[in-house]
Amino acid sequence: MSLDDVLSRIDADLPAATDRLIDLLKIPSISTDPAFKDHCEAAADWLVADLQSLGVDAQKRPTPGHPMVVGHIDGPNESNGPHLLFYGHYDVQPVDPLDLWDRDPFDPEVQDTLAGKVIRARGASDDKGQLMTFVEACRAWKEVHGSLPCKLTFFFEGEEESGSPSLVPFMEEHAEELRADVALICDTGLYGRQRPAIVTMLRGLLGEEVVITGPDKDLHSGMFGGLAMNPVRVLARVIAALHDDHGRVTVPGFYEGVPELSDDIRSQWQALGFDAAAFLGEVGLSEPAGEAGRMPLEMLWSRPTCEVNGIWGGYQGSGFKTVLPSRAGAKISFRLVGDQDPQKIRTAFRQMVRDMLPPDCSVEFGNHGASPASRMATDAAVFEKARRALSAEWPEPAAFVVSGGSIPIAGYFKSILDTDAMLIGFARDDDRIHSPDEKYDLESFHKGIRSWARILAELDE
Amino acid sequence: MSLDDVLSRIDADLPAATDRLIDLLKIPSISTDPAFKDHCEAAADWLVADLQSLGVDAQKRPTPGHPMVVGHIDGPNESNGPHLLFYGHYDVQPVDPLDLWDRDPFDPEVQDTLAGKVIRARGASDDKGQLMTFVEACRAWKEVHGSLPCKLTFFFEGEEESGSPSLVPFMEEHAEELRADVALICDTGLYGRQRPAIVTMLRGLLGEEVVITGPDKDLHSGMFGGLAMNPVRVLARVIAALHDDHGRVTVPGFYEGVPELSDDIRSQWQALGFDAAAFLGEVGLSEPAGEAGRMPLEMLWSRPTCEVNGIWGGYQGSGFKTVLPSRAGAKISFRLVGDQDPQKIRTAFRQMVRDMLPPDCSVEFGNHGASPASRMATDAAVFEKARRALSAEWPEPAAFVVSGGSIPIAGYFKSILDTDAMLIGFARDDDRIHSPDEKYDLESFHKGIRSWARILAELDE
Repeated sequence: MSLDDVLSRIDADLPAATDRLIDLLKIPSISTDPAFKDHCEAAADWLVADLQSLGVDAQKRPTPGHPMVVGHIDGPNESNGPHLLFYGHYDVQPVDPLDLWDRDPFDPEVQDTLAGKVIRARGASDDKGQLMTFVEACRAWKEVHGSLPCKLTFFFEGEEESGSPSLVPFMEEHAEELRADVALICDTGLYGRQRPAIVTMLRGLLGEEVVITGPDKDLHSGMFGGLAMNPVRVLARVIAALHDDHGRVTVPGFYEGVPELSDDIRSQWQALGFDAAAFLGEVGLSEPAGEAGRMPLEMLWSRPTCEVNGIWGGYQGSGFKTVLPSRAGAKISFRLVGDQDPQKIRTAFRQMVRDMLPPDCSVEFGNHGASPASRMATDAAVFEKARRALSAEWPEPAAFVVSGGSIPIAGYFKSILDTDAMLIGFARDDDRIHSPDEKYDLESFHKGIRSWARILAELDE
Repeated sequence: MSLDDVLSRIDADLPAATDRLIDLLKIPSISTDPAFKDHCEAAADWLVADLQSLGVDAQKRPTPGHPMVVGHIDGPNESNGPHLLFYGHYDVQPVDPLDLWDRDPFDPEVQDTLAGKVIRARGASDDKGQLMTFVEACRAWKEVHGSLPCKLTFFFEGEEESGSPSLVPFMEEHAEELRADVALICDTGLYGRQRPAIVTMLRGLLGEEVVITGPDKDLHSGMFGGLAMNPVRVLARVIAALHDDHGRVTVPGFYEGVPELSDDIRSQWQALGFDAAAFLGEVGLSEPAGEAGRMPLEMLWSRPTCEVNGIWGGYQGSGFKTVLPSRAGAKISFRLVGDQDPQKIRTAFRQMVRDMLPPDCSVEFGNHGASPASRMATDAAVFEKARRALSAEWPEPAAFVVSGGSIPIAGYFKSILDTDAMLIGFARDDDRIHSPDEKYDLESFHKGIRSWARILAELDE
């Protein structure tokens, strides 16, 4: 039996694999909203059952939050090949604003578009579609060979979109069970429509919530305006002060541990021919809006950022209400690079906010997670094997790239399990992850499955 | 028959009058939210029926928004006394945040508190309770005398809490019908718990909505953060720039037409013994937060302000969502004094916002009404008569005061109908109007009714 048999089997099974993915996408496993807790459980149950159908010893494992799914299966003989761990997440982002979706985000559909067929649903790309590329590759391999090529561990979490509060404790508690030779993570994208990519660096993420309180109740802005402090004004001043006129973040010490690009990497990135105008044009923008004097790919890949992810306060309904609000809040996140220390930055940020508070205002902070940036061991042999396998499947050769998004799990595999991680994924820039009308290209799904089969074959040698 | 008979009748009828008010308070006539349109109609119907029960020729009059209620009744003979118009509004503020209310805002209840009995409901003070003080005074007068003391027009609107879009066109169209010798407006408060007040000046109000758009959809802050412009940051910069470090509003030309206090008025106000610490202490604050160098009563009464009444953008749910929002908006209002021109300020404000927009951001503005400040003709004889009547009813003598809140109708009576307005009301500072747990003191209601009876008697002479 050859790799070609596995690839043929994948091609023949694509309609059934698509139906399985659609089944999983129907489950609204939004992890950040407690109202969807049962649906997260249902998604975990679905995966346990599907893994068991491959002969994997799979279980749902409880956590204080949403459950983990862990499964193990041996290779054809005990000594054969590396022990691989595959990680994905079954939870999805919230869907609001719902009125911007063309259809129910949890009623998936395969649609014809000018750019080809797409699977449209929340989570289609991030991360259920990507997760299933690996599962389907294993299914085809098993059906052709009767066993999997090597010892495999499946590790799926349900809290990735809500800061993964249970992840580190779980990994620490089950370090022996989860340790592997290589961890494969499928939560990233292609570089260009036909060019696969292996991520070698990931920005870290620090999530903060700030709630400022002024008066102890909402007031009438006519009766009190001019005399009482308005917390929205205080919050706006804080947010406005977070960047200077050159787009640099002003939190004291923020740039400690931020490396400058080496000339070598700068040349590599320039050679990638990143088209900032096209990238921004896809979302209705035209000009890079980051730090002055940085090239666009640098802004996205190797510079830290501070963004406001949400803000609220006072009256938001239709019409007008002349209220002077008691409270105003914002969700603020920092993307981190190099050796930036999330805890030091959290402390400095909070102190900066406290220092800006006028009399009579108080502040509460919420902790929405913290993970440093991570850098992969690209000199390991598995990276070269994966690059070869991907380049065989896709029209253009695989690139080593950076992800501006944060996938803290990669760092945890190294720090907790001493396992190197390799991030390979098949999402496209226009997948609208975290946005209305998320989709996953059927081509991403199909060639993604085939890519994993080729990688398994390479690693098995 | 004497005034004393009317006052006795009012005392005896207080329980029934309270029940009538409670009936009216049960109707959730929130004007700013289209979902409550039918309830606004129902409140208007209730008032028409109640006025008709007094023999008033009352009708519900359609407008493009919520209806007006207009009613006329003659005095005992055609030549007798002045023609008075009484104005109030039957619409109420929204009730959010609902979870901060101790009970259903539209399930009114008379409650015992340490400070006496109160009627607890949305609109109890602003303005249904106040409006009914006049209606109940008329009812008692009619029952005792068989007729009202002079020709009366009742004029109730249902859009006061949402910028009164139909008011000016309606007044212009029905100017002949509505013109009177004096307009009485009951939408203000006592000065001190036992000291009645007549308002001689009102701040104007300019309402603006600002919505800033950056990317044409919500983005993933990891994938795009650092390169794409975040509209929340732009909005925060705009809001932060609206005041300088001394609390002054920075909109160009904003202070044109703002008069300084005369020494005479400054002395009068100082003599009122305003206790800023107590006033702020009621709402959990301690320090005046307005313009540097102004006395607190000046900040509230004679200085213009700019407040943010609401702000929104991105993800506001529980947990965290690493979104880079497409849009962010705010509701912003300006309180105006003296001869400030609302239209000029609107234009200058909008230009200021446009000038702050970075490339790729666009802005839309919403118009939520504009009215200049107004000043009453306090040298007219009616003011002295009303002062005498109020001083007879209350333990402390009536004061001439200013309202920081905006009641544009007072200016319209003058400019459209050439009718002088007199603002008298019985609300207390702790009535929590526009806030959760709004109430009206039963004493305000009772002595308010008695006050109007005394004023009618004075004006009748």
